[in-house]
Amino acid sequence: MLLQEQVLNTVELTHSAARQAAILPMALKEKILVQTAHKLRDHRPQIQDANRRDLEIGEKKGLSSAMMDRLTLSDKVIDQTAAGLEEIAAFPDPVGEIVRMWTRPNGMRVGRMRIPLGVIGIIYESRPNVTADAAALCIKAGNAVILRGGSEAAHSNQAIVEIFKEVLRENSVNPDVVNLLPTMDREAILFMLQLEDLIDLIIPRGGEELIRFVSQNSRIPVIKHYKGVCHLYVDADADLEMAVKLTFNSKVQRPGVCNALETLLVHRDVAEDFLPAVTEKLAEAGVELRGCERSLDVVRSMNPATEEDWYAEYLDLILAVKVVDDIDAAMSHIAKYGSLHTETIVTKSYGAAQKFLREVNSSSVIVNASTRMSDGYVYGLGAEVGISTTKIHAYGPMGVEDLTTTKFIVLGDGQIRE
Amino acid sequence: MLLQEQVLNTVELTHSAARQAAILPMALKEKILVQTAHKLRDHRPQIQDANRRDLEIGEKKGLSSAMMDRLTLSDKVIDQTAAGLEEIAAFPDPVGEIVRMWTRPNGMRVGRMRIPLGVIGIIYESRPNVTADAAALCIKAGNAVILRGGSEAAHSNQAIVEIFKEVLRENSVNPDVVNLLPTMDREAILFMLQLEDLIDLIIPRGGEELIRFVSQNSRIPVIKHYKGVCHLYVDADADLEMAVKLTFNSKVQRPGVCNALETLLVHRDVAEDFLPAVTEKLAEAGVELRGCERSLDVVRSMNPATEEDWYAEYLDLILAVKVVDDIDAAMSHIAKYGSLHTETIVTKSYGAAQKFLREVNSSSVIVNASTRMSDGYVYGLGAEVGISTTKIHAYGPMGVEDLTTTKFIVLGDGQIRE
Repeated sequence: MLLQEQVLNTVELTHSAARQAAILPMALKEKILVQTAHKLRDHRPQIQDANRRDLEIGEKKGLSSAMMDRLTLSDKVIDQTAAGLEEIAAFPDPVGEIVRMWTRPNGMRVGRMRIPLGVIGIIYESRPNVTADAAALCIKAGNAVILRGGSEAAHSNQAIVEIFKEVLRENSVNPDVVNLLPTMDREAILFMLQLEDLIDLIIPRGGEELIRFVSQNSRIPVIKHYKGVCHLYVDADADLEMAVKLTFNSKVQRPGVCNALETLLVHRDVAEDFLPAVTEKLAEAGVELRGCERSLDVVRSMNPATEEDWYAEYLDLILAVKVVDDIDAAMSHIAKYGSLHTETIVTKSYGAAQKFLREVNSSSVIVNASTRMSDGYVYGLGAEVGISTTKIHAYGPMGVEDLTTTKFIVLGDGQIRE
Repeated sequence: MLLQEQVLNTVELTHSAARQAAILPMALKEKILVQTAHKLRDHRPQIQDANRRDLEIGEKKGLSSAMMDRLTLSDKVIDQTAAGLEEIAAFPDPVGEIVRMWTRPNGMRVGRMRIPLGVIGIIYESRPNVTADAAALCIKAGNAVILRGGSEAAHSNQAIVEIFKEVLRENSVNPDVVNLLPTMDREAILFMLQLEDLIDLIIPRGGEELIRFVSQNSRIPVIKHYKGVCHLYVDADADLEMAVKLTFNSKVQRPGVCNALETLLVHRDVAEDFLPAVTEKLAEAGVELRGCERSLDVVRSMNPATEEDWYAEYLDLILAVKVVDDIDAAMSHIAKYGSLHTETIVTKSYGAAQKFLREVNSSSVIVNASTRMSDGYVYGLGAEVGISTTKIHAYGPMGVEDLTTTKFIVLGDGQIRE
């Protein structure tokens, strides 16, 4: 009960700071982010002291070396985080942009103006640098933010948030624009997820289990990103050399991330030419191949794929391979097994490219480029807030702009309803 | 349990029709809507037979005359509904629009293309004409739709949906693009609201109680519209004659709707000139006035307002009146008591207008026009899907476009991630 009161109190303070956050002048927001970057560098010893306490506790708890690694605020991580803040500071400010404006027959001008969402709740896991990143993105878009980080990083997160608050105070801005919730059990998170009148959006960043827990229990809208079962379809009219290069890059360049390739679909007319070439190259890189029956007829060295392979997000050097009759069969496979993340077609055919672009409704639909290109930075959105695979509000890589909404503005000169 | 299976089955059928709905050619969607309009007129006797059964049951149940009225499909209502469908048919088609497109340094072109949401669930109450309206809007935006109407209108809804299905069949389109759920108890609705993998968006249309039930229990994103506590602020620099006209229109023209005025805020410098004029005119129209202490000093005939009045959505000929010190006090009042629906400022001051436009973040912010102008038709959006007072996905009056989202499309020529 006491913890619930503490959560409610923090959320209410953040909510009341949101009005000020929404109208901070562009230049002041930039200044705050740049000063925070400087302070992160200047206060490196204090941050690393706090981080050391988290690491000591983590060691006692027996965290895996991968987790310890993500938890560590090395000099390099702090430098990168500070540089990231400066980059965000330099983005165009989305707030106040008039997205469109038109005139009505009665002379009234109607427009849509971009405004902050208000209060954003970020629920995330171990990496403490997410704290700085997420807070900076929210501030840039004029929002107040409530952070709920992983318990393993409690001291590190606290130290980083304190730096934000100091800079806010120094600039006469309410420090409640950035708040960190105390480490909470699931019950307290459940309580937070009911505060729909005080929080406008929840963004969970972490594993599928966390995201599912949050989205199943939240009354507040949630931006979800479950997984990436990405496909690359090699059309009958593909440049096969390009297809090998794109398949290889999509699968091998960084297999552990959500835009890495998981299933390769190949038009039957090119299977005999294409499959031996691509599988040889993939096998050299240590990729395990799991093929459908028809693909096994062409390349016998592959393992046979089972039904589960078509659903799998391997995040590893494994690739499922399927021969299909035509582009429609490829698109049906994607519709059935895909996760709405990213799909690529490799083709020289105008008609096939147009059909794929129009009929596949995943969040990124690509012609002749690696699935790995589906990324906020690569697309030029600036920072990556996350990738949404649900269609509401934002779909695909999210930039700062997706932390805003638009309101209607009306410029009248006395119009009334008759 | 049987009912749940029935719900799941219907939702699954709708989901599998969504792919076809999404790629229906523009001209075919128009044709379907126009043919449905014709058939609604031609099948008037059958529709009214079905409606008569609902009305007979309603009479036995002792429905109020207002409810019986909303339930009745008179000749006029059917004609209006058919005309509405023809109007929707004539709208620009949002699907496939390239919202933006830009080129990256590596030569890759990246764009955002408008696509349907997929499957939309509409949960509504008594009016059976909503059935036709909602189905038509969803089809126009390339979505499949699951309708769950009020039990009182079961036969009427069924008759209307049958007409849609007939027309879909005649055009070789899967009739599951439009489905009506059987009358359900709350438990079955609860079950439906968990099907987040099959339904993309839920739009409840009805009273606050229904909306709250849906939004509190849904794992699927919900577009909410709770209430409209709209304000009109008369600035020190207002044209007082215009202010009287706009106040009167905002309050009196149709008091029972969500964009009607509920609270009048008046700058203290003009209270003595403005209040006697406006209150006299309002009183003539039968408006009950409830004033703050300072306003009572000027116009003694008003009733005193209590704290609850500032939160009230009267939907009636009642108006709360408050004198404020300045524009900041007006905006603080709006932030505290408002419902994020619609606020108007009446002013001749450039600075005050700009400040109000920038700092008030309700879904419609109006300068010098009636609050009643905040409406999809008046804004030129075409049909009104609803008014959202939550900031995610859509905020303010929603048009057909708000039943879509955008995906990223990428046109490459072999780009890979280095």
